[in-house]
Amino acid sequence: MNAAKVNRRLLVRRRPVGMPVAADFELVRESIPALDDGMILVRNEYCSLDPAIRGWLEDAPSYVPPIPLDDPVRSIAIGRVAISRHPEFQAGDWVFGMTAIEDYSLARPDGFLRRIDALRVQPVTRYLSALGAVGLTAYCGVTLLCRPTPGETMLVTGAAGAVGSLVGQIAKLSGCRVVGVAGGTEKCRRLVERYGFDAAIDYKGKQEAQLSAEMARIAPAGFDIVFENVGGVVLDAALMNLGLHARIALCGLISEYNSTSGPVGARNLWQLIVKRARIEGLFTGDYLEHFGAAQEAMTAWLEQGRLVVDEQVEQGIENALPAFLRLFSGEHQGKMILKIG
Amino acid sequence: MNAAKVNRRLLVRRRPVGMPVAADFELVRESIPALDDGMILVRNEYCSLDPAIRGWLEDAPSYVPPIPLDDPVRSIAIGRVAISRHPEFQAGDWVFGMTAIEDYSLARPDGFLRRIDALRVQPVTRYLSALGAVGLTAYCGVTLLCRPTPGETMLVTGAAGAVGSLVGQIAKLSGCRVVGVAGGTEKCRRLVERYGFDAAIDYKGKQEAQLSAEMARIAPAGFDIVFENVGGVVLDAALMNLGLHARIALCGLISEYNSTSGPVGARNLWQLIVKRARIEGLFTGDYLEHFGAAQEAMTAWLEQGRLVVDEQVEQGIENALPAFLRLFSGEHQGKMILKIG
Repeated sequence: MNAAKVNRRLLVRRRPVGMPVAADFELVRESIPALDDGMILVRNEYCSLDPAIRGWLEDAPSYVPPIPLDDPVRSIAIGRVAISRHPEFQAGDWVFGMTAIEDYSLARPDGFLRRIDALRVQPVTRYLSALGAVGLTAYCGVTLLCRPTPGETMLVTGAAGAVGSLVGQIAKLSGCRVVGVAGGTEKCRRLVERYGFDAAIDYKGKQEAQLSAEMARIAPAGFDIVFENVGGVVLDAALMNLGLHARIALCGLISEYNSTSGPVGARNLWQLIVKRARIEGLFTGDYLEHFGAAQEAMTAWLEQGRLVVDEQVEQGIENALPAFLRLFSGEHQGKMILKIG
Repeated sequence: MNAAKVNRRLLVRRRPVGMPVAADFELVRESIPALDDGMILVRNEYCSLDPAIRGWLEDAPSYVPPIPLDDPVRSIAIGRVAISRHPEFQAGDWVFGMTAIEDYSLARPDGFLRRIDALRVQPVTRYLSALGAVGLTAYCGVTLLCRPTPGETMLVTGAAGAVGSLVGQIAKLSGCRVVGVAGGTEKCRRLVERYGFDAAIDYKGKQEAQLSAEMARIAPAGFDIVFENVGGVVLDAALMNLGLHARIALCGLISEYNSTSGPVGARNLWQLIVKRARIEGLFTGDYLEHFGAAQEAMTAWLEQGRLVVDEQVEQGIENALPAFLRLFSGEHQGKMILKIG
């Protein structure tokens, strides 16, 4: 590996208000810092672009501290060790962990930054999709939080997204009837034809009442499980269509992340009383001890051809922002990944 | 018992929009209908006025059907058997059950309409407060849904209300530190001095940020449990002050029941992800099998003087509406009960 002398880094220069814009960031060129003992220098090959990054850009309490101003944009990435001053890592090793959108990251290996077997799983970008955070979120969320039993009906919102498409497939493999909500006829077609959902609902241009009525037609007895990625009117419509003792896994609220007027809010919470249902927050990090088993299960399904995984790999660190914004405009298909080099 | 010839009945004439008004109802005088075999005629002595009645007036899906137009207002009541054509009931027996705001109700005894021992518990109105729906809701909600462990911190909203004041006391008896939210300094004083809450927060005239800051000062580590009766900004502030793995029992959303612009909505649901917390709807009817044990426990605490129970008994069926509206204006103390005769 040829360690370049320049480290391109995407720094956060100010906190975005609403949808992030170019002036919120700066792509700088810096030299590569020296390593202390016990550290490695990671050449980031692929960075995962996730809606969660939008949350880390806010100066608000969350499950991780905000990205400090003038720091590079934090990201889950896979890369190769360029220089090692750690006894267990060699130059050339593939690693997975939380680094940043930059050519090179200094890192101190810990429980989260770890070596991966790039020969076993091809392409290696699967470690950012089916075997990465989105795959672990989908697997742990469905099997450990939602705990479906065969025959139950599950609604997945944001179903054409990287997490949602895997959630639906895992739910199908668990014996559920699965209904997906996505934006546009093309995505809805993909849910059914490519990911094997039983039915799809297009939310575009619809208000709560119409969405709710469509859900009621497709699932007259209500949903036993809702895997919620969206919030807003989609969540409100889902709340009107719960089965008795339904459980809602709250994984994300992507419709609200870039709102400048604040979140819409969930207006139909009273349905939790009517249906004695519950909403529970899903944080994948809580299932750390299950990650190994989850990756084994996902790898086996991949090998058996039972899991369709879509990835969209964008080229070049200079395209980080437009690629990231595609997560919110919905003009992408599958897990959004940025090839740094 | 002297069965009068006239039955005064409070009928629903139209569905209220926002706060109910007199023209939504009509107090009529009808004759007393004949009884079929297996039925009893109940002389309603006391009717329970609950915020839930506002929900039953809506033509919307809920855990019970809406009260039909031109039917009397449904209510939980205690009364005495005036005429019995049921082998297990005698004239003069005290009964408890779901009847209506009227002098006399025809009823067919079932699991819910049943005889009570008016000699054991004095005054008999306790069957509409500590031993009635509010007491069962508080007891089952705290002990079976919230399941507190000693040392946990619980927030109770609507804490000066009939349910909230009992919830706080039961939580204290369970070893919790208990913080109450109520409207006005007088109610807050009562929470601490009369019901034994550890601290009280006055929500009147405060926005979410100020409420949230007060909660954070009183419970810097966040609330392990929230017993939610209110919704709106109070719920939003509570969501900003959750402890890790907090659980929220959703018992009611009284701030929203009379809204004409629709509910405000819970805007801080993302905190459920941050804190891996859950909201679960509480419906007392689900705990039917525990009612006997709950009433035994509550009766014992009453006998030991460990439970303070406030009741406000309003006089006369003609005062039903103003008494009911006091539930929402907050100008009452304790369980609101209407003496029919």
